[in-house]
Amino acid sequence: MKQVRFGIVGIGQMGGSHSEWLAGGKVENAVLTAVCDVNPQKKEWAAEKLPQDVKFYDNYIDMLDSGEIDAVLIATPHYDHPVIAIEALNRDLHTLVEKPAGVYTKKVREMNELAESKPHLVFGMMFNQRTNPLYQRIKEIVANGEIGEIRRTNWIITTWWRPQAYYDMSSWRATWNGEGGGVLANQAPHQIDLWQWICGMPTKVRANLQYGSHRNIVVEDDVTAFVEYENGATGTFITCTHDIMGTDRFEIHGDKGKILVEGSKKVTVSRLKESETELNEKMTFADVANLFRGQGMSDLMDVEEFEIPDQWGTQHINVMINFTKAILEGTPLLAPGTDGIKGVTIANAMHLSSWLGQDVEIPFDEDLFLEELEKRKAEELEAKKEAELETV
Amino acid sequence: MKQVRFGIVGIGQMGGSHSEWLAGGKVENAVLTAVCDVNPQKKEWAAEKLPQDVKFYDNYIDMLDSGEIDAVLIATPHYDHPVIAIEALNRDLHTLVEKPAGVYTKKVREMNELAESKPHLVFGMMFNQRTNPLYQRIKEIVANGEIGEIRRTNWIITTWWRPQAYYDMSSWRATWNGEGGGVLANQAPHQIDLWQWICGMPTKVRANLQYGSHRNIVVEDDVTAFVEYENGATGTFITCTHDIMGTDRFEIHGDKGKILVEGSKKVTVSRLKESETELNEKMTFADVANLFRGQGMSDLMDVEEFEIPDQWGTQHINVMINFTKAILEGTPLLAPGTDGIKGVTIANAMHLSSWLGQDVEIPFDEDLFLEELEKRKAEELEAKKEAELETV
Repeated sequence: MKQVRFGIVGIGQMGGSHSEWLAGGKVENAVLTAVCDVNPQKKEWAAEKLPQDVKFYDNYIDMLDSGEIDAVLIATPHYDHPVIAIEALNRDLHTLVEKPAGVYTKKVREMNELAESKPHLVFGMMFNQRTNPLYQRIKEIVANGEIGEIRRTNWIITTWWRPQAYYDMSSWRATWNGEGGGVLANQAPHQIDLWQWICGMPTKVRANLQYGSHRNIVVEDDVTAFVEYENGATGTFITCTHDIMGTDRFEIHGDKGKILVEGSKKVTVSRLKESETELNEKMTFADVANLFRGQGMSDLMDVEEFEIPDQWGTQHINVMINFTKAILEGTPLLAPGTDGIKGVTIANAMHLSSWLGQDVEIPFDEDLFLEELEKRKAEELEAKKEAELETV
Repeated sequence: MKQVRFGIVGIGQMGGSHSEWLAGGKVENAVLTAVCDVNPQKKEWAAEKLPQDVKFYDNYIDMLDSGEIDAVLIATPHYDHPVIAIEALNRDLHTLVEKPAGVYTKKVREMNELAESKPHLVFGMMFNQRTNPLYQRIKEIVANGEIGEIRRTNWIITTWWRPQAYYDMSSWRATWNGEGGGVLANQAPHQIDLWQWICGMPTKVRANLQYGSHRNIVVEDDVTAFVEYENGATGTFITCTHDIMGTDRFEIHGDKGKILVEGSKKVTVSRLKESETELNEKMTFADVANLFRGQGMSDLMDVEEFEIPDQWGTQHINVMINFTKAILEGTPLLAPGTDGIKGVTIANAMHLSSWLGQDVEIPFDEDLFLEELEKRKAEELEAKKEAELETV
């Protein structure tokens, strides 16, 4: 294969951009040959925006069976991600899935197991923020042990402001039946993936979610989650969609140093010359007093500051370039598809903790999660029916 | 009365400083006439460091009964704070109590009720950080409604680094029987008071405490707490004593603005021209895109930055000046004694939440708290006995 022929399922907001980037030649050795959408109006959009030879399908099975594509990019609503990926993998197509990998881990696991049985296929996740050199550098610093064993992680990421008008744009938005959640399903998966990619998976989750906080929606739009890691380290993850002055502050505290990322742009890395464990063993309380009132910390640590500007506009294209190279040249994937289950696991654990009002250990009972989710889907449908009857 | 004659109970680390400040004339119209300590070695210290006419007592009841003092400053271990305050108030002495007000709310409530029945007495708490003009200014901004109704509060205050040597200095430190807790009883009460002073009392608490994290102690030295307020706002409070590169970051997010305090020194106040509630009603998703990719937030808000340097050295003296003026001139107290119960309530709720592994509503069952505390005190004594037997 010299060129990868792409088909895209779902040409809404993200899928539309992906198709224009591919059609515009932004990805070397990749060509857009087909797009698919269940919305017939999208056919007109495709005719207007995409080259004439890009074929439009209104049924993704037909596109997968067409023989016209080598790879599929799935950019549909979340529930369908693993469903369509399974169909694509079963047809031996390389598969790239928009985040999140799915709504619930049970289905994502099924997708992953199939993908693992097809090692000749490239299976990737559109975790575009993994292409950000800033987070790549942070991951490297942590993985190198430069800040020692992690003790605490804190991410406050409330820059996902969305007004009511956003939620009112489509009836599936911010619903249990349409998205399977709110900020945890739609906006925060980016940071949840980076958080676990850099700091590892937690083993216990306790989350406090607020549903429809300052917005007329039924799903969560305000999250405060506490996690524990296997080594006893702790973490918090805070996100919401109602803070127009949003904060983005990620701090990782280790035995040998600390990393602070502000605004996904400015990085401060403090590296202790001796680990806290060693300092704790030898320092007296008089040393502490000197430290905080007098001499300061400069003798004990070095501080490095740097900025890496935001690359948002090219992140998605870079994932597609990486995915295409993986197919053509065997380049390792930045975001293997099977990684997608990690963020879904964390988000599911947060939902489950909130629903049950208790700590949730990872791995959790996937059937229980699904049962609780189905309850909320059914309640939502019931409420919708009642509302429709009232307006009759 | 033209001058207030002070007696100090407990001349350890803090009480020793207080007695030197008073004896040194730092507080106008206040004079130190007596000190008291159960440790006989402190008599030598007093003879050496304090003026000859300052009388030394080894029994605080004798000092309270002496007729030589008008006011008492209590700087003993925490459990004794309300016990001694009750004796002092019963003898119609003005009473100033070191923080925390006590170890458990039940006893603090008894002290408060007595104080309320004696309105002719001045009853104050040594919340020295309330004298910091920075926090006075923040309180004013919030109370004025300049940032609107509060939606979220976050305080990460991990600058309380203490090495093992600190804990090993005295056998009562960081024990259930000696202090009734760890960082929540000793270090963090300062910020817990400021937090509730500025943002109000929470109505629900969920805390994850780690006991003896990276230190050989039995009490908590690592706290991650989640709270909810009556209006649905949320908050987190994070503290620990094992972070030598400690963070001090306090953020208050309101409907009309945001306050960020970094290092108890640098303040950034963002004020929205229209409230988020109003912006939410009128902005479209296209506006959001413009906001975050193009024009930025400058049209929507004003940002004020200022720094107020640390006043630590004079904070305690300022509390004593305020307390003395309250006695002589009726000046309002910055920190009324009855306010002390608020921080103890929050700290107790955090302990109880951790012990029970569940959410704790405020007000909580004070008897249950005491029962759980007594369990830990008994276990600690048992373990101590066993350790002593082993070394015989």
